[in-house]
Amino acid sequence: MSEMQERDSWGPLPSPAEAWTRVAARWQAPHLATEQVALLEALDRVVAREVVSPLDSPPFDRSAMDGYAVRSTDLPEGPDRPELTTAGEVPMGTAATAMLGPGQAIWVATGSMIPPGADAVVNVERTEVTARRLRIVGPVPPGDNIVIRAADLALGDVVLRPGRRLRPQDVAVLASLGYPMVEVVRRPRVAILLTGDELRAPGQPLAPGQIYNSNGYALAAQALRLGGQPHIVDTIPDDLAAVTNALRSAVAQAELVLISGGSSVGVKDLTVQALEALPGAEVLVHGVATRPGRPTILAIVSDCLVIGIPGNPVSAMVSFAMFGQPALQRLLRLSAEELAVPRGGAVVQARLEGEITSKRGRQDYARVALRAEAGAWLARPVPGASSILTSMVFADGLVIVPPNAERLRPGDEVTVTTF
Amino acid sequence: MSEMQERDSWGPLPSPAEAWTRVAARWQAPHLATEQVALLEALDRVVAREVVSPLDSPPFDRSAMDGYAVRSTDLPEGPDRPELTTAGEVPMGTAATAMLGPGQAIWVATGSMIPPGADAVVNVERTEVTARRLRIVGPVPPGDNIVIRAADLALGDVVLRPGRRLRPQDVAVLASLGYPMVEVVRRPRVAILLTGDELRAPGQPLAPGQIYNSNGYALAAQALRLGGQPHIVDTIPDDLAAVTNALRSAVAQAELVLISGGSSVGVKDLTVQALEALPGAEVLVHGVATRPGRPTILAIVSDCLVIGIPGNPVSAMVSFAMFGQPALQRLLRLSAEELAVPRGGAVVQARLEGEITSKRGRQDYARVALRAEAGAWLARPVPGASSILTSMVFADGLVIVPPNAERLRPGDEVTVTTF
Repeated sequence: MSEMQERDSWGPLPSPAEAWTRVAARWQAPHLATEQVALLEALDRVVAREVVSPLDSPPFDRSAMDGYAVRSTDLPEGPDRPELTTAGEVPMGTAATAMLGPGQAIWVATGSMIPPGADAVVNVERTEVTARRLRIVGPVPPGDNIVIRAADLALGDVVLRPGRRLRPQDVAVLASLGYPMVEVVRRPRVAILLTGDELRAPGQPLAPGQIYNSNGYALAAQALRLGGQPHIVDTIPDDLAAVTNALRSAVAQAELVLISGGSSVGVKDLTVQALEALPGAEVLVHGVATRPGRPTILAIVSDCLVIGIPGNPVSAMVSFAMFGQPALQRLLRLSAEELAVPRGGAVVQARLEGEITSKRGRQDYARVALRAEAGAWLARPVPGASSILTSMVFADGLVIVPPNAERLRPGDEVTVTTF
Repeated sequence: MSEMQERDSWGPLPSPAEAWTRVAARWQAPHLATEQVALLEALDRVVAREVVSPLDSPPFDRSAMDGYAVRSTDLPEGPDRPELTTAGEVPMGTAATAMLGPGQAIWVATGSMIPPGADAVVNVERTEVTARRLRIVGPVPPGDNIVIRAADLALGDVVLRPGRRLRPQDVAVLASLGYPMVEVVRRPRVAILLTGDELRAPGQPLAPGQIYNSNGYALAAQALRLGGQPHIVDTIPDDLAAVTNALRSAVAQAELVLISGGSSVGVKDLTVQALEALPGAEVLVHGVATRPGRPTILAIVSDCLVIGIPGNPVSAMVSFAMFGQPALQRLLRLSAEELAVPRGGAVVQARLEGEITSKRGRQDYARVALRAEAGAWLARPVPGASSILTSMVFADGLVIVPPNAERLRPGDEVTVTTF
């Protein structure tokens, strides 16, 4: 078909962005209900409500090392440093209630509660015990090797905002706060209608002139990947009444309807005819200036979005990528922040906005948050020791500092692998 | 801990790559059984066996347009072109058995079988019918608007190789060949053992000195994302016999065991002690030169890989990314080709290896295959009209040619969004 004739048949066609703008302005996506799901079912689901910390995390000062809790003032550096007296241990998972007296040291494992009176932990590798007398090597600054109460999150801190698609670290932070469930947006229902007398379901025998339905599976799989709940409706005959009935029933049951076949400008342009037969239906777009995917239709029927998907398999998938994807993102109420950054292992070149310290011979994994500026990515290091889970939650990805690098500086180009 | 003391305690530590090389050389990953799953359950699963086309796809010459099937020799260009006589239609989904005679035209919808004798289809927009006489505008080259039999796949063609993680188009191509099921590698079982007297499950009340288990959920979610089947074993007390028993039972039931807690060099170094107590266990790596993730342990017990995961939450997740991910990839038998390219919406800058034609005012979506060369990505256009589903199957992603571009040339830099 020549370009002139394309224009004759379809009129001047909008770009995908223009077409989506038209939809976004007119489509009142329904506000989907929320549901409580257990943590391991919550992966990749979308948070419906702000999550606030119900406690201090950690809920007490904890040791970051296996070693001895001490009073730092007992341990001046130099030849006059005294030995300490060992005074038992704080068993894991128990309250440390007894006050640590002057000159005493008490054994703590990584994660043990720090006893009152102690203000530092000396890791076991720097200690020597002989008959309850403890000798300590090296400096002991106050606060050393202690993860203080609420270092990760304080009671009332906002942990997750609505519209976040949950990643493993987000599931973990919910667990760390004691939440066994999380409130997520229910999966949007996606009805997939295939029209075509020639279509057979996989597994059935083919008669001459018939082919297998593959578009239904492509679209269902695409919808599944994005968090939709697809339903492939039985193949509909190429008949206006049948298509109209199927469409009426689909828009009543689903939030997004994909109808494939019958959308080119032939005598069999059933999708548009069926839409015109439905009260309240409004065709917003009939054709987009793309290849493939040109004969895409976008319509709304009350609060349901209907996408007329071209019949060719590549066109069908591209059409879904153009319009099915933003439709599901809107139904799932993904936040602007969530959509602004790539997810799921994407590799992004970015310019560093801060400094990452490392040392030769060691490979470092630094957490960074991403933002776009003037079409380029900027990566800001997210501070926090490895005990701070929120440094993963507030980050978008990792920068690997290879063993032969010493430190990365602001402005350095880095490779970010997103979460 | 100073660098000197690190070396004293741990010896010279391997890099993550060196550590994994040691594992790869010693670990005989078990050959997981395969299972048949329905197409929509197959998304993101890994193909276990080469899939060959059981038929020609399409199984007959099909029309790519709504219009008239004709004999191109009947339609010379110029003023002498005769009108044709319309001779009914080929209904969708039926065999076109009657021969098209000279001077005749028969109506075909998109997807209809081409009748014998016809060698081109003229789209309806270029035709005019008056009283069964058909006038046709424009050139009619032989083969025009026909998708020939086996254009997508021929009987016996290899469609999917083992080790492919199924994407939506791969599911669709299986459907197009009539397969209702596909044979995939069963999900590797990942046992997650948490040691720590201080750990409580989310939802339970916390006593002083206790915290919630979050690492178990982080690791389970990471394993889930990669196709593993995680099982969080109840928290194990900090006790050598208990840890040894739990480890013995886990290695008998899972292909990958993650054990978190007790892997630093304190008196509570239970993981290594428990491993030493298990007959046939071999500790391959004890510590890696990374931050975080240093106190990671890698061991094999018969054909099970055991990863001793550090207790700090960031360290735990980094440790999984370093070793849990390649372990699952190996268990799932992901192919080298599959691992060589990014998947799932990653955005990659690449240099074009061929030409992509487009035209001004239209946004094109071109399918490309990716390969790495000298640390850079090369993108080769995958040929095929929009009727050719395998152009999506044999591609790794899409290049969008914006409306203001006319054609892309070899060597041009392009942005590829991967499938």
